[in-house]
Amino acid sequence: MPILKNISQLATCPANNPQGDAGLLEDSVLVWRGDHIEWVGRAADLPTRFHGEAVTDCGGRLVVPGLVDCHTHLCFGGWRGDEFAQRLAGASYQDIAAAGGGIMRTVTATRAASSGDLERTAMGHLAHMLRLGVTTVECKSGYGLNYDTELKQLHVYRTLAERQPVSLVATYLGGHVLPREFRQDREGYLRLVCESVLPTVTRNGLAEFCDVFIEEGAFTANEARVILSRAQELGLGLKVHADQLSDGGGARLAAEMGAVSAEHLEYVGPDGVRALAEAGVVAVSLPLASLYLKERYIPARSLIEAGVRVAVATDFNPGSAPSYHLPLAMTLACLNQNMTPAEALMGATAYAARAIGRGERIGSLQAGYLADIAIIDAPDVNHWLYHFRDNACTGVIKSGKWVHTRTPVRNLSSD
Amino acid sequence: MPILKNISQLATCPANNPQGDAGLLEDSVLVWRGDHIEWVGRAADLPTRFHGEAVTDCGGRLVVPGLVDCHTHLCFGGWRGDEFAQRLAGASYQDIAAAGGGIMRTVTATRAASSGDLERTAMGHLAHMLRLGVTTVECKSGYGLNYDTELKQLHVYRTLAERQPVSLVATYLGGHVLPREFRQDREGYLRLVCESVLPTVTRNGLAEFCDVFIEEGAFTANEARVILSRAQELGLGLKVHADQLSDGGGARLAAEMGAVSAEHLEYVGPDGVRALAEAGVVAVSLPLASLYLKERYIPARSLIEAGVRVAVATDFNPGSAPSYHLPLAMTLACLNQNMTPAEALMGATAYAARAIGRGERIGSLQAGYLADIAIIDAPDVNHWLYHFRDNACTGVIKSGKWVHTRTPVRNLSSD
Ligand SMILES: [Zn+2]
Ligand SMILES: [Zn+2]
Repeated sequence: MPILKNISQLATCPANNPQGDAGLLEDSVLVWRGDHIEWVGRAADLPTRFHGEAVTDCGGRLVVPGLVDCHTHLCFGGWRGDEFAQRLAGASYQDIAAAGGGIMRTVTATRAASSGDLERTAMGHLAHMLRLGVTTVECKSGYGLNYDTELKQLHVYRTLAERQPVSLVATYLGGHVLPREFRQDREGYLRLVCESVLPTVTRNGLAEFCDVFIEEGAFTANEARVILSRAQELGLGLKVHADQLSDGGGARLAAEMGAVSAEHLEYVGPDGVRALAEAGVVAVSLPLASLYLKERYIPARSLIEAGVRVAVATDFNPGSAPSYHLPLAMTLACLNQNMTPAEALMGATAYAARAIGRGERIGSLQAGYLADIAIIDAPDVNHWLYHFRDNACTGVIKSGKWVHTRTPVRNLSSD
Repeated sequence: MPILKNISQLATCPANNPQGDAGLLEDSVLVWRGDHIEWVGRAADLPTRFHGEAVTDCGGRLVVPGLVDCHTHLCFGGWRGDEFAQRLAGASYQDIAAAGGGIMRTVTATRAASSGDLERTAMGHLAHMLRLGVTTVECKSGYGLNYDTELKQLHVYRTLAERQPVSLVATYLGGHVLPREFRQDREGYLRLVCESVLPTVTRNGLAEFCDVFIEEGAFTANEARVILSRAQELGLGLKVHADQLSDGGGARLAAEMGAVSAEHLEYVGPDGVRALAEAGVVAVSLPLASLYLKERYIPARSLIEAGVRVAVATDFNPGSAPSYHLPLAMTLACLNQNMTPAEALMGATAYAARAIGRGERIGSLQAGYLADIAIIDAPDVNHWLYHFRDNACTGVIKSGKWVHTRTPVRNLSSD
């Protein structure tokens, strides 16, 4: 049974803890067996039955649960760096969409790309994410918007799940935006989603969740209800892109339908907050999207005070959040969403796991949980999220196996 | 003569170009000889005399001048990650200072630290900065505030300049804040600075610039004038920490005294902007400090429109900007200071070089300039600063020598 010792701070992140309490233990030890955690606690309390096992010295570093990026659009064709420059020069996201840019441009590129190209690109991103300490990634379709390409995206995720170590959780986002060819026939598109794509997705086990983007220019709450009801009937869990650019009732719908999570929520109002709290829906905050869109940040304090769990994810996509740097999202959650480092950590581990229905298997370092572990070159959580570096992660264990190690240039606070 | 070819975009960054024009060449080649650049231009125009020289294929990547971080507080004792958590919980920077935290805490730790410890820590930071593409770093004293420790910091910089590849440009910042022991004797401290420390600094060639922090709680414009006049008399160039938290007349003083740069300027008013423009003072923007302090960002557009050159630097220090990630500062300059990617690049190369009196030697990729070069895994500048990654830099050449190479996980936009 492998053992990690000389851990300056171990963040156990118990799933049932309140957001501000990441279950921090000083001077601790972690033992795992196969793919599961066997024991965690103070070094002084290590049971004698573990003496003599193979020990890795963490050199007085921080150990956290493998990070969970619970909201990404990982598989896409093409980039949109030129639109970044246009937006900085004053064009709005809506202007760019009207000129053929925006999500529709990515849809065109994703439809045109081969599965092999999409796999190679996404595989590169996953390799970088893993090195940052991310061991589980939720990944959405939604850049196909027709039968073939939505399935192509979901098949890419299935293939990638087998070919690299990061766990993937796939979400069908056929309700991302209305594809051009259905511009005069919204009901026709809903029929395609509900009667054709969704049944194929579920029959082949290609997704665990169904997500809909409720927003002006995307889908109404009523249209979302049609898609989500059908998904629920077919056995999928529900997610909602809600209240990103206006309060469109998305949070209330997520609560009403028992969604596992509502995402974005930059414009959620008091009614929405209350509804999420009562229904136990996780609020997934996406600070990189706010940064890149120069938009409002989620009212994290109101949500936390109302009892809502706030997860933190990247929203990685080629338009509004072209970065998969989850630790940067966590530092921004601190600075721009007024969350403490411990709250941001809970948001990217235990609560992120809950947002993808994995709250009892990953995201916490407790006996029985999967041994998904990141070693961070910092003495504690505060220091990690304060001293932003390219990559502070120096080791990653996934399902009990070492999948990344790096000798860091020493950078600790002892001096 | 070594040659870089297959460069998708080469940013030549001519020092006299306007901020928005980074001198971008597509499909280009760069030739250097010894430590200097010999030729740059289109691949098709490569003179025959260079045919047959040793060629490195850049794989269709972006090539930019080695980045110049023209404002850091690189040498310090201790960290202040706990204050980060306190500030997120609502404590102001001033509250924390009053409780013994803030700059004074770093002063105490820096006084207590050995030169060897300070060197080792700063050396680690420089190694990370180099890997990000940074080849020149301005570094300030100012955490000693007494004779011995100010000199200790400057000696650390001299030692580091000899022991690692990044070029260092040292600045004496005795006028950072008033040390506790002079709380009742401001004039006594000015005498110490002007009559004792400054003459030793210049006699031993330990700094090229003198900087003063003009702010409530630090020094008045009149006190700064005393220090800066003396520094000028002794042959140092001048810099000013100006108008960070209020319009304290720092920009006007910088212009009046012919400073090479004025830094921060979050609160600079129209008078200050005009004065900087007329005097040709570089404005050094520090977006990471605005991010970490949750403060206003510099009015970059007003400055650029008035004809002021706006540099971009990290302000790396253990309190208000605990990150040396210059590419992150550049992306933030785009998103939060409304600068274009080309403007941010000029700000971290040619204009940053000018802000440390090196505008004719570094920061541009033109014949005669030092061969300080960064290879970036992106097709162009827009893509680089849009797709934020842990580290997009895959190769660094310093004074003509390869000092860093990395095989990237391919991440380009072709697919
Ligand atoms: Zn999204
Ligand atoms: Zn500074």
